[in-house]
Amino acid sequence: MSDVSDWWQTSIIDMEPGRIALRGKPIQDLIGHISFAQMIWFLVRGDKPTQAQAHLFEAALVAAVDHGPQAPSIATARMAVTCGLPLNNAMASAVNMLGDVHGGAGEQAVTLYHFVETRSGDLGNALDEWISTQGKILPGFGHRFHTPTDPRAPRLMALVQDAVDDGACDGRFMKIATDIEAELMRRKGKPVPMNIDGATAVIYAELGFAPPLARGLFCLSRSVGILAHAWEQSQQGGRNKGPTPPSYRWTYTGARNE
Amino acid sequence: MSDVSDWWQTSIIDMEPGRIALRGKPIQDLIGHISFAQMIWFLVRGDKPTQAQAHLFEAALVAAVDHGPQAPSIATARMAVTCGLPLNNAMASAVNMLGDVHGGAGEQAVTLYHFVETRSGDLGNALDEWISTQGKILPGFGHRFHTPTDPRAPRLMALVQDAVDDGACDGRFMKIATDIEAELMRRKGKPVPMNIDGATAVIYAELGFAPPLARGLFCLSRSVGILAHAWEQSQQGGRNKGPTPPSYRWTYTGARNE
Amino acid sequence: MSDVSDWWQTSIIDMEPGRIALRGKPIQDLIGHISFAQMIWFLVRGDKPTQAQAHLFEAALVAAVDHGPQAPSIATARMAVTCGLPLNNAMASAVNMLGDVHGGAGEQAVTLYHFVETRSGDLGNALDEWISTQGKILPGFGHRFHTPTDPRAPRLMALVQDAVDDGACDGRFMKIATDIEAELMRRKGKPVPMNIDGATAVIYAELGFAPPLARGLFCLSRSVGILAHAWEQSQQGGRNKGPTPPSYRWTYTGARNE
Amino acid sequence: MSDVSDWWQTSIIDMEPGRIALRGKPIQDLIGHISFAQMIWFLVRGDKPTQAQAHLFEAALVAAVDHGPQAPSIATARMAVTCGLPLNNAMASAVNMLGDVHGGAGEQAVTLYHFVETRSGDLGNALDEWISTQGKILPGFGHRFHTPTDPRAPRLMALVQDAVDDGACDGRFMKIATDIEAELMRRKGKPVPMNIDGATAVIYAELGFAPPLARGLFCLSRSVGILAHAWEQSQQGGRNKGPTPPSYRWTYTGARNE
Repeated sequence: MSDVSDWWQTSIIDMEPGRIALRGKPIQDLIGHISFAQMIWFLVRGDKPTQAQAHLFEAALVAAVDHGPQAPSIATARMAVTCGLPLNNAMASAVNMLGDVHGGAGEQAVTLYHFVETRSGDLGNALDEWISTQGKILPGFGHRFHTPTDPRAPRLMALVQDAVDDGACDGRFMKIATDIEAELMRRKGKPVPMNIDGATAVIYAELGFAPPLARGLFCLSRSVGILAHAWEQSQQGGRNKGPTPPSYRWTYTGARNE
Repeated sequence: MSDVSDWWQTSIIDMEPGRIALRGKPIQDLIGHISFAQMIWFLVRGDKPTQAQAHLFEAALVAAVDHGPQAPSIATARMAVTCGLPLNNAMASAVNMLGDVHGGAGEQAVTLYHFVETRSGDLGNALDEWISTQGKILPGFGHRFHTPTDPRAPRLMALVQDAVDDGACDGRFMKIATDIEAELMRRKGKPVPMNIDGATAVIYAELGFAPPLARGLFCLSRSVGILAHAWEQSQQGGRNKGPTPPSYRWTYTGARNE
Repeated sequence: MSDVSDWWQTSIIDMEPGRIALRGKPIQDLIGHISFAQMIWFLVRGDKPTQAQAHLFEAALVAAVDHGPQAPSIATARMAVTCGLPLNNAMASAVNMLGDVHGGAGEQAVTLYHFVETRSGDLGNALDEWISTQGKILPGFGHRFHTPTDPRAPRLMALVQDAVDDGACDGRFMKIATDIEAELMRRKGKPVPMNIDGATAVIYAELGFAPPLARGLFCLSRSVGILAHAWEQSQQGGRNKGPTPPSYRWTYTGARNE
Repeated sequence: MSDVSDWWQTSIIDMEPGRIALRGKPIQDLIGHISFAQMIWFLVRGDKPTQAQAHLFEAALVAAVDHGPQAPSIATARMAVTCGLPLNNAMASAVNMLGDVHGGAGEQAVTLYHFVETRSGDLGNALDEWISTQGKILPGFGHRFHTPTDPRAPRLMALVQDAVDDGACDGRFMKIATDIEAELMRRKGKPVPMNIDGATAVIYAELGFAPPLARGLFCLSRSVGILAHAWEQSQQGGRNKGPTPPSYRWTYTGARNE
């Protein structure tokens, strides 16, 4: 019969009164010695990144912090503080939004890259197969706003190339992603550019993070913008702010049988 | 009459198709050039930290990442993934927990330090006054587990001292916090040590962050442990895990009038 | 030393394999025999309402279910499903919004009524004292949209009057609320009508619910509208919908020092 | 180009100052005239249930309100209030947990019933096909605690039978569910009884609710227990309560390379 102390098991943290060890390291030996980004990598994976890996990893975290009050996550955070929520609750409501379509798409993009890798040499068929089961919207590609190019994607790809040159990764997933981009251009006759989910997914895949972690790391990154906007909104004031001014409502499409 | 485009206002981000600027800087000039911790500071405040400020800031972020499956935030994250939640939703439920008593206490601790500062020279009366309106549990002090000392606090205070020596801050709030610790020792006859909320609050106060940001930054920091534990739990499997094994339940204290 | 089985204690539910009792009653004797509204009352309080109490209680629950996509809670739910969230997560993000300013104000309104009751006979001074410590926006009164009258408030007050006639409550808090309304009219020279938080707070106070339960019950009630809108949005489709169409952004008020 | 007032469209609610109509009915004509359960049905679907339908619907809502502090949703709610969260935030964190494995399984159970229906006459092959793509744990069947029988399931099935007799539904999905139960018994040689998700899913399927609504309605129902437990915990006090007493921790399984 299972014992209570066995119910939760972890290799992340060990403690006794006066002692905390993370992944086997006393916490006081980590504080002041590793960067926040290195700590993220270390706590999630258990190993430490090389300098070049850390640099690339940090670029992905920096790139996705914000996309403005038009993004559902940021809008939610701003509305939340006008409803009287403190920052932890505002951040929670906002991070919750980062599902399959918004931010969480990074997870699907890594999965797509892995899938294409297993069909190497045959991108066209791989995409057809993916689309037949997953639908025609490829995760990580296309943007309704940043056309033709999301400025974050080429910058991130340049840093992946630097990392390849430094031996931090081998560029395999960057090639897959840019091949997909080219194939989409060919099929559609117009650019369907890599978006922020697709570009950071390249980096997370190159660095060996499992697909769900692309979503988790996006959440960490976007939490920064969420915090900044929630805080700014709280300084501006405003009570119970909906999406638009009270004078703008919505279109009613229902019955009028009163 | 207010226009829709005026409804949301921000000085954090500006964009047009193909262009994103954060605090006035093109995002491609930030990616690869500033660390994740620097980006947090920059996006939340709008200025950039000095090297010494960034080092101290990063120490606070690193220190609070985790406190094990016994912490309500971490327990929630682990239970969440066994309920089938993806990482964004697990992280949201967990971050939501960082309220006034758990993690959110950093906000109150900064407020306490500011309050004591306004009563400078008279700590005893300041504490009496605080306690008379806010209750006898001082935010940021005392730990039910780490007695006599939370190992993170002295390490963080040593780094604050380094930062004072480097001119990154003036040590005013460190003095207030250690004075409070000494006064509590005198009053109680036993240590009521600075805890992680109290210690990181010293750093955030020294660096000029407003009280609510101590809570917000704690949320960013603890999100790392939340992600690591949620991910580890998802690798372990487990379905619908409650706080204890199903064979352990709870004490029923109610009516038996069936 | 505390035992694990003592750690959680409840008088709400007792079980063993094959047996579930709520407040001492076997669940199979409740299912099919009490209404959902009666179950809410029974589970939260442990007693059962009279028919007249249940009728009034149900009116409050029915009244607050929805206030349209302009309400932050409803907007959040709708945005959430366009981000790919299933209904449980969409509902959670939305319910989270019901803080001090939005919905949670019912809790403060009950507190206000209790406060005024302790100053009976002197409403003017009671309001002055409340305003001096809590600020000039009285919880439960005023509406930026429904002027001069929120149609839900007079209907609910008529039902409270019916309940007084039926002996289900004594009308004490209805009198306080309508006195406040009259006093505000006198002070401002224009109506500051009781809103939905203020009106449902009258009912919850009349029925003896503690202030925080006014908030909790509002959350149950509004969850209905949240679910309805989340479901309708999922039927409409839409991906990653922000507050306004992508062509409408926001006003940028920050630096342009790029 | 889309206009802002077109961005959100709904047939649920219409308003102008002083007027609110839900599904075309003035709200003051609904308040006091329909039950809370009827309002749930009306707002979500737009039609009104017959008396017999409402009775069966209400039974499903009543049945799922609580499963004790051992359920992750309830445990989360109780921990949340000890972290200082008000009821709206505690409820949100808890409802968020009702994912694919916990509560959300009702959605999958309805889907399973619909799937089996399309393979009518061939249950064995239908289950084999389902299991080959969805895995061997059938949603809605099996309980680690209530063996051999969850007391809620037979009571709910008896009410479905009553409803069939009253012409409120045709019993088709009840037959499918009990056939699945029998087939599982045959295959496993021991009972794999219908659980609360499976039993309420029968009702929601019989009443014509789409699969995701089984999840959404479960969330409404369980929100009641969540509220009751959160409130009870707040009355008990307790600060920062983790899953087990602080003296019980967890098993550390990681490196000790300090």
